[in-house]
Amino acid sequence: MAANVLDSIMLFGDSITEHGWMPGGHAQLLADRYVRKLDVINRGLGGYNSEWGLTVFKQIFATKDEQTRLPTVRLLTFWWGANDAVVEGAVQHVDILHYIDNIHMAVSLVKSSTSPYYSPKTRIILMTPPPVNVAQRPDEERSNERTKAYGVALRQLGEELEVPVFDVWTAISDRAGDKEDGLVPFLSDGLHLTAEGYKIVFDGLMSTIEANFPELMPDNLASVYPSWEEVGDEANPRAIKPRRLDI
Amino acid sequence: MAANVLDSIMLFGDSITEHGWMPGGHAQLLADRYVRKLDVINRGLGGYNSEWGLTVFKQIFATKDEQTRLPTVRLLTFWWGANDAVVEGAVQHVDILHYIDNIHMAVSLVKSSTSPYYSPKTRIILMTPPPVNVAQRPDEERSNERTKAYGVALRQLGEELEVPVFDVWTAISDRAGDKEDGLVPFLSDGLHLTAEGYKIVFDGLMSTIEANFPELMPDNLASVYPSWEEVGDEANPRAIKPRRLDI
Repeated sequence: MAANVLDSIMLFGDSITEHGWMPGGHAQLLADRYVRKLDVINRGLGGYNSEWGLTVFKQIFATKDEQTRLPTVRLLTFWWGANDAVVEGAVQHVDILHYIDNIHMAVSLVKSSTSPYYSPKTRIILMTPPPVNVAQRPDEERSNERTKAYGVALRQLGEELEVPVFDVWTAISDRAGDKEDGLVPFLSDGLHLTAEGYKIVFDGLMSTIEANFPELMPDNLASVYPSWEEVGDEANPRAIKPRRLDI
Repeated sequence: MAANVLDSIMLFGDSITEHGWMPGGHAQLLADRYVRKLDVINRGLGGYNSEWGLTVFKQIFATKDEQTRLPTVRLLTFWWGANDAVVEGAVQHVDILHYIDNIHMAVSLVKSSTSPYYSPKTRIILMTPPPVNVAQRPDEERSNERTKAYGVALRQLGEELEVPVFDVWTAISDRAGDKEDGLVPFLSDGLHLTAEGYKIVFDGLMSTIEANFPELMPDNLASVYPSWEEVGDEANPRAIKPRRLDI
């Protein structure tokens, strides 16, 4: 029962989000950077596609009524597609149109003023699924070309909705020199990310925040509770009453 | 506005808690281990002593009334003393009796049925401040012997209150072979911890949980939302409604 003193960043996605708490993962790096400013809430669900994710989203994102009593999600990332893009017929498969439809619906739930989940203070970043390296992963269900196509469609959706997209696929592929071999340092098993891969993701997220939501850059957010130098009073330390800073 | 789907672990303390989000820090390791089971809330306040901490605690821990609408803090760590133990006269100094009094009060706020913060589902672990290596830290305000004394007093308080104490001072000192030189791998600046130091803390916390609150071991907590294999239904994946698991 943490009282409502810090707002939050919510990371919503599949296993690549769920693993973000590893050392060097994007959740860990964000939590470290935003300590005393925003809590990081990891809502990664390994193996899930955007279809199952959308159903869960309606349970994990607070309704307008609940929002009045809960910390505000100031930043929300949707990072789906890695499982949607498995080959047609596999149980996790969701075709591109339905994938886009699901992300569109999730965005609308937050941004539409008539939605029961309407949250005007929540900023959204869409993220494309990372590249796949089948040479690292004997995986007949996935292909890098198919995964890329989901990201291309997501970028288009982001333009239409005027929601920023951080193109993870391109950011990592560029660093890999667009070569299969070049992907190895960034992918642990051809699908999931290494710390080096997550570093690209973290840097890209911070750049996306800076470009689109500069008010959410750590330097532009007040630390919750004053620094100890402000609290301390040599004359009578026991009398000090730390106050909550407005954030 | 994350809806109330996961309970939490709250880490409350000074800078040594605040830095726990670093790669290999105890917050990061706990968040990774408890993903989809309990959220980790870092309430570390660099430079604070237990006196200022106690005042803040009344703001960050939910009252009984607030608790009905917020995730439950299932585990709460109090890790104070590193700043209290600075030399008398320094602004952060809190003498041992007042330090113990503050921790006692914080525990009572949570455990006493007449307290406005009473939370019968919250388990508490007290932690002693880590050893100090003045050879690494030209710090005339701190001494390892004084810090040790705060930990000894805390262990006694824990026995009296029947609240488990994880003795960080002893765990790290033992690993250092009780030699000043031996502390270097575990302390980054003679006061704060390296990842190697935090690993001792994480392991000790898990052992303390296992010995005292086995119901809070990760294997004994259900994952929130079923695994994707349970959600997936080859016949009609779009019809699946993931359900929340009771936790």
